Amino acid sequence: MPTLDRQDAVFVLDLGDGENRFHPDWIASVNAALGEVEKAEGPRALVTAATGKFYSNGLDLDWLAAHSDDRQDYVTAVHALFARLLSLPVITVAALQGHTFAAGAMFSLAHDFRLMRADRGFWCLPEADIDIPFTPGMSALIQSRLTPRTAHHAMVSARRFGGQEAAAAGIVDQATDEATLRTAALELARTHAGKAGDTLGTIKTRMYAPVLTLLRDTTNPLG
Amino acid sequence: MPTLDRQDAVFVLDLGDGENRFHPDWIASVNAALGEVEKAEGPRALVTAATGKFYSNGLDLDWLAAHSDDRQDYVTAVHALFARLLSLPVITVAALQGHTFAAGAMFSLAHDFRLMRADRGFWCLPEADIDIPFTPGMSALIQSRLTPRTAHHAMVSARRFGGQEAAAAGIVDQATDEATLRTAALELARTHAGKAGDTLGTIKTRMYAPVLTLLRDTTNPLG
Amino acid sequence: MPTLDRQDAVFVLDLGDGENRFHPDWIASVNAALGEVEKAEGPRALVTAATGKFYSNGLDLDWLAAHSDDRQDYVTAVHALFARLLSLPVITVAALQGHTFAAGAMFSLAHDFRLMRADRGFWCLPEADIDIPFTPGMSALIQSRLTPRTAHHAMVSARRFGGQEAAAAGIVDQATDEATLRTAALELARTHAGKAGDTLGTIKTRMYAPVLTLLRDTTNPLG
Repeated sequence: MPTLDRQDAVFVLDLGDGENRFHPDWIASVNAALGEVEKAEGPRALVTAATGKFYSNGLDLDWLAAHSDDRQDYVTAVHALFARLLSLPVITVAALQGHTFAAGAMFSLAHDFRLMRADRGFWCLPEADIDIPFTPGMSALIQSRLTPRTAHHAMVSARRFGGQEAAAAGIVDQATDEATLRTAALELARTHAGKAGDTLGTIKTRMYAPVLTLLRDTTNPLG
Repeated sequence: MPTLDRQDAVFVLDLGDGENRFHPDWIASVNAALGEVEKAEGPRALVTAATGKFYSNGLDLDWLAAHSDDRQDYVTAVHALFARLLSLPVITVAALQGHTFAAGAMFSLAHDFRLMRADRGFWCLPEADIDIPFTPGMSALIQSRLTPRTAHHAMVSARRFGGQEAAAAGIVDQATDEATLRTAALELARTHAGKAGDTLGTIKTRMYAPVLTLLRDTTNPLG
Repeated sequence: MPTLDRQDAVFVLDLGDGENRFHPDWIASVNAALGEVEKAEGPRALVTAATGKFYSNGLDLDWLAAHSDDRQDYVTAVHALFARLLSLPVITVAALQGHTFAAGAMFSLAHDFRLMRADRGFWCLPEADIDIPFTPGMSALIQSRLTPRTAHHAMVSARRFGGQEAAAAGIVDQATDEATLRTAALELARTHAGKAGDTLGTIKTRMYAPVLTLLRDTTNPLG
C-alpha cells in the first residue's frame, strides 16, 4: 500500500512495491496522502515513486471484473484522483523507476514533471490493444499534456516507450540512470518547494479547466 | 480516378495519377473505398498513395468556379470526407510521394501516420497566398494534429515544407527515399492491422470530438 | 513612449528604451500604432522592437497599486491589446533584444514570429513566483502558442529561458546574435508583407477563436 514520507520540504509518496494497481483501497490511500500534502503549510513539494518493476499498471481490472456494477463509481473515483493531482497547489514530480502503463501512465501525466529510468521499463497506453477505449476525461488529460503527434501515436498504436524514447517524445522531462533517478526527482521538487500555495493551484486549475470539467463530470464519466 | 486494392490485411487506396483534386466524382470514389474498408472484417489497415508528381492538390477550384451555387454543399462534402477518415476504425497511413497541397495536405493530416518522400515534393498550406481562408472545420483539423508553432507557421506563411523539413516540424512521421516509401507505409500499416475495430474508432472519435463536430456542422460550414 | 516608423513595406514599432511596462498611456500609444498599421493599405508587415535592456517587463504594477479600483478595466485593456495583435491582418515579428517578462512575454506570443538575442536577456513568465495568477485569457493565449510541455514548464516553474533555450523549447523561432537581430526581423517581415489583408486576418481569427473570446470577455476578465 502507498506510504507517505517527508524529507524536509519534500513529501515522498511511495506507490507500493507490486503492480500498484488502482484498487479502491489504494485510491483511498493516495487520496489521504494528497490531502496531507494539501493541508500542510509552508514550502513543500511532492515526489511520487515506487519500488520494484512497476511504477503503476493502472486500473485494477481483477477488482473491476468482480464488481462490474460499480464500474461507473470506480471510474468516477479514478477521474477525481487525476483531477486532484492535476490541480494540486504544490509542485509534483513523478519518478518512474519501472513500468508505467494505462491509468498509471495517465497518473504520471497529471504531475508537473516526470523523470524516467533510462535503461529499463516502459511508459505505455495499451488501451487500443486491450479493447478499453479511453474515457473522454482520460483522453482530454492525455491530450492536454502531450504534443498532438505524441498523443495520437501513443493512444492509437499502444507503443511502449523506453526512457530515452519517452524523453525524445516529450512524454517525460528527462531520462536518467536508475541510481540518480530518485535523487534527481527530490532535488527538482526541493527547488520548487517555495511555489506551493494558492497561486500555483489557481494557475493549474485555469490551465486545465476543460480537462478538470470532464474529469469531474460524475453523470457520465464513461462517455 | 481512385482505385482500391488489397494486399493481405492492407488496403491500398491509390488517389490517382494526376493532380488528384477533389472533384465530386473523386470524393464519391474515395468515400466508396472508405466504406469498403469500414465494412470489411478482421485485421485490416489502410494505406493511401498516388502516382506521379502529386499526392493531391486539394479542392477542385475549376469545378468550384463553374458551380459557385454549390459551394456550401461541396465544402460540406469535403468536411465529411475529412471527418470520416479522421475517425476511421482502422489504422491509416498516407504515403506522400508528391506534392501535397491545401485540402490535400489536410486530407493527409486526417491519417494516423504520414510518410513522405525526402528528395522531392512539398507539403504546403497555400491558403494565405491564394486568398482562401481556412474554414473553421479545416482550421480545427490542422491545429489538432500539429504543434501550435508548426500549425501557425504553416497556416500564416504558406511555407512549402520538403520531406526533411516536414519530418523535423512533426508534420510527417518520417521522410524516406522514394524507393522505400510505399514499402515502409505498407509495413507500418500491416504492423497495426490487428488494431482495427470499434475500440480504435471510439478512441479517435473521442480524441477529435470538437474537430468532428465542426467538420460535421452542415448549417454553416464556411464559417 | 512607443514610436512607429516605416521602412518601405515594414512598419517598425519601437516599444521604448525603459522597462516598457504597460502604463495606460503606453497601451494607448501601442493601440494607436496598431491602428495605423491596420488602416494602411497594400503590402505591409510589422516588426516590434525596443532599445536597451528590456523588450518589456509587462504590467505596470506601480500604476496598478495606485489605481486598484481600476484593476478590472486595466486588465480588460491589456486583454484587448493582446487580442488585437493576435488577430492583426498583417504578419507580425517580435525582435526580442532584452528581457521579455510576464505580460511582455505574452505580448511577444501574440506575434506571428519571434526572434531573440542569443547571448543576453531572458524570456520568462514569473507569475508563479510573484503571486499573480494568469487570468483565464492570458492562460489561453500562452497555451495556444506553445507545446503543452513548454507552456506547463514556463507557467508553473517561472523558469527564465535564455535565447538558445527559448529557441529549443519553441518559444521563439530563432536565436540570433545581437548585431543581426533587427535586420533578420525586418527581412522576415518584408518577405511576408504581401500576405497583409482580410484573408490573413480571417485565418488568425478562426485559429484563435476560443482565445479571442476569453480575451474579449469584458464581464469577468480576472476569472
